[in-house]
Amino acid sequence: MAVYLDYNATTPLHEKVLEAMQPYMGAVNGNPSSLHRFGRLQRDAIENAREQVAALVDARAEQVVFTSGGTEANNLLIKGLCAEPGINRIAISAIEHMSMLEPAAMCDCEVDYIAVDSEGRVTGDALQQVIKNKPSLISVMSANNETGVIQDIQSLAKLARDRGVWFHTDASQAAGKIDISFAQSGVHAMTLSAHKIYGPMGAGALILDKQLPLHSMQHGGSQEKGLRAGTENVAAITGFGAAAELAKKERDQRAVHVRVLRDALENKLQAFEGVEIFSQNSERLPNTLQFGTCGFDGETLLMQLDRHGFAVSSGSACTSGKAEPSHVLKAMSVADELATSAVRVSFGKDNVMAEVDAFVKAFAEILEIKNSAVMLAANV
Amino acid sequence: MAVYLDYNATTPLHEKVLEAMQPYMGAVNGNPSSLHRFGRLQRDAIENAREQVAALVDARAEQVVFTSGGTEANNLLIKGLCAEPGINRIAISAIEHMSMLEPAAMCDCEVDYIAVDSEGRVTGDALQQVIKNKPSLISVMSANNETGVIQDIQSLAKLARDRGVWFHTDASQAAGKIDISFAQSGVHAMTLSAHKIYGPMGAGALILDKQLPLHSMQHGGSQEKGLRAGTENVAAITGFGAAAELAKKERDQRAVHVRVLRDALENKLQAFEGVEIFSQNSERLPNTLQFGTCGFDGETLLMQLDRHGFAVSSGSACTSGKAEPSHVLKAMSVADELATSAVRVSFGKDNVMAEVDAFVKAFAEILEIKNSAVMLAANV
Repeated sequence: MAVYLDYNATTPLHEKVLEAMQPYMGAVNGNPSSLHRFGRLQRDAIENAREQVAALVDARAEQVVFTSGGTEANNLLIKGLCAEPGINRIAISAIEHMSMLEPAAMCDCEVDYIAVDSEGRVTGDALQQVIKNKPSLISVMSANNETGVIQDIQSLAKLARDRGVWFHTDASQAAGKIDISFAQSGVHAMTLSAHKIYGPMGAGALILDKQLPLHSMQHGGSQEKGLRAGTENVAAITGFGAAAELAKKERDQRAVHVRVLRDALENKLQAFEGVEIFSQNSERLPNTLQFGTCGFDGETLLMQLDRHGFAVSSGSACTSGKAEPSHVLKAMSVADELATSAVRVSFGKDNVMAEVDAFVKAFAEILEIKNSAVMLAANV
Repeated sequence: MAVYLDYNATTPLHEKVLEAMQPYMGAVNGNPSSLHRFGRLQRDAIENAREQVAALVDARAEQVVFTSGGTEANNLLIKGLCAEPGINRIAISAIEHMSMLEPAAMCDCEVDYIAVDSEGRVTGDALQQVIKNKPSLISVMSANNETGVIQDIQSLAKLARDRGVWFHTDASQAAGKIDISFAQSGVHAMTLSAHKIYGPMGAGALILDKQLPLHSMQHGGSQEKGLRAGTENVAAITGFGAAAELAKKERDQRAVHVRVLRDALENKLQAFEGVEIFSQNSERLPNTLQFGTCGFDGETLLMQLDRHGFAVSSGSACTSGKAEPSHVLKAMSVADELATSAVRVSFGKDNVMAEVDAFVKAFAEILEIKNSAVMLAANV
């Protein structure tokens, strides 16, 4: 038995998405920059996908810049803006994904980090605090990949906008799971990733208000209006478009489905002594549950669960193997000992309730073995 | 009828490559950075592909850094080296692809351009000339995408090495078409692209000698030993591996096949008045033929051929739509008028001799119509 409970790390490719990609993996061939009929068919596929991706987040097609993924989109945003003369200070939340934190640390700008409260939320007060330093850009993710905490992006963006500060949000985890509107939220830039919404790896997007003086970070051909050189991955972009269209259509039913499973698991886990649910009082993504288990090491627990057939995460897939406690939980002032025990369960459309029950059974067994070992050691 | 004669722009996905990719587009799911069994299967696929790609160019697996394509690999090489303190001068050939020329122009290094002779070859003398300026890196492409001219990389790399200069070659067009050896040629870095060898779009590689102090250009997770953050495109990388393995096995037979077609077309085209074959006296890729037609505009000719059902290029797909004559032909001192008439035909494994005959017939018709129009105008 192998049960996948790690949909925030990546989602399986939806069969309808694969269907949409198939023609661009053999039958339709050509470079989208080529002027002949072969090239034009590829170009049409990209522009169709651009409409679909824009529609998912209530943006306009011309605002979509396709990239190789969410990491590239975040890098492009940070480095592409910091390359503009006169931009020398930005502020990002302390709980951003590494693909925001690392480019920010590497770029030539001064960086302020926006604090979160113990529930993992960025408050208006915290934002006002960094606005005092007059950043050119503020970035706060729409929903956190570990805890699932959803930020009030519309309010935060308004605070920034009122002070003439650009606002970016990494919506890689939020898009497709909750309602997202580029137009209504008032953000100037937004990051999306295809493989978090049952689309393929290898495609992402930066949704961009044209007023941002973004510099290209990958040079060569003039693809994506000069903002991202390199032959477009047509199959992946087509898949991204199809996944976005499906996500828009199925979002509400998917949300209901995973919320039932998540809530059931949350209720059952709370019955265990020593288990603590992180950000339980925050609004969270309906599929995400992160918890700590007193006295356990998260990665060891992950491997034990893996042996029982359950795939979960000890935080972000991108930081796997690192011994330090999650920077997200640290920012929430969770004690190191509890933070290092963290395990994230993230549900998807294909999970069923029987898997929740089986997971709880396996978890109980692992706890029992550990407790027996501890008692045995105490008796010795 | 639609005949694809633009294999240098991109190749169709080989059916065996698609077969190798299929499991990673649905059945096998997981993030390769995840520690659980789902993640490990993806990791295994990447490492297997790394062996296959290394084998194609006689390199070691640990020298392979996967990227989203050839453009990213070239950008990473140039910008990643120029980010190292103390590296402030490089030299690249004047006929490089835009994905080399543009990053070089944008980076903080001084750039010298290596001249080519009228046949499009970089001579040892030209290389010695730029070595005088003490560059840290020299880059010369293995084969040119437009003319197909093959450079004597082993000799050029030796000249550089003897003077303690690192040597990079963009082998995107050469790999899979001619024999390439990273180990034997003495280069320190090499760029590869999957979609030029019947692999998928969205995968490329920088083959790298570890002694090069390369800085990462995309930050976040620690994928590719920290040299390229971002969730790997497992399906595309798997396809790249499969395409590399096939290319290694089928290279010689593919070369014979396309050379026969190319030589036949070359012979027939020479019978037309005003047609000039570029780099005819150079060693060229067996599949590539670039020619000028006096009095014609290359892009107009391309569109006319497209209406007749033939897909060719007027140069590089990445510079399509630009009115200027090709920088490659300019570097060879081809007169502007002839250069702007350039058309490139690049054959692939699926072309047949009947297509050559049909192409020549269509070309003759287009020339005849033009000549009649000219005569008509002269009579008025």
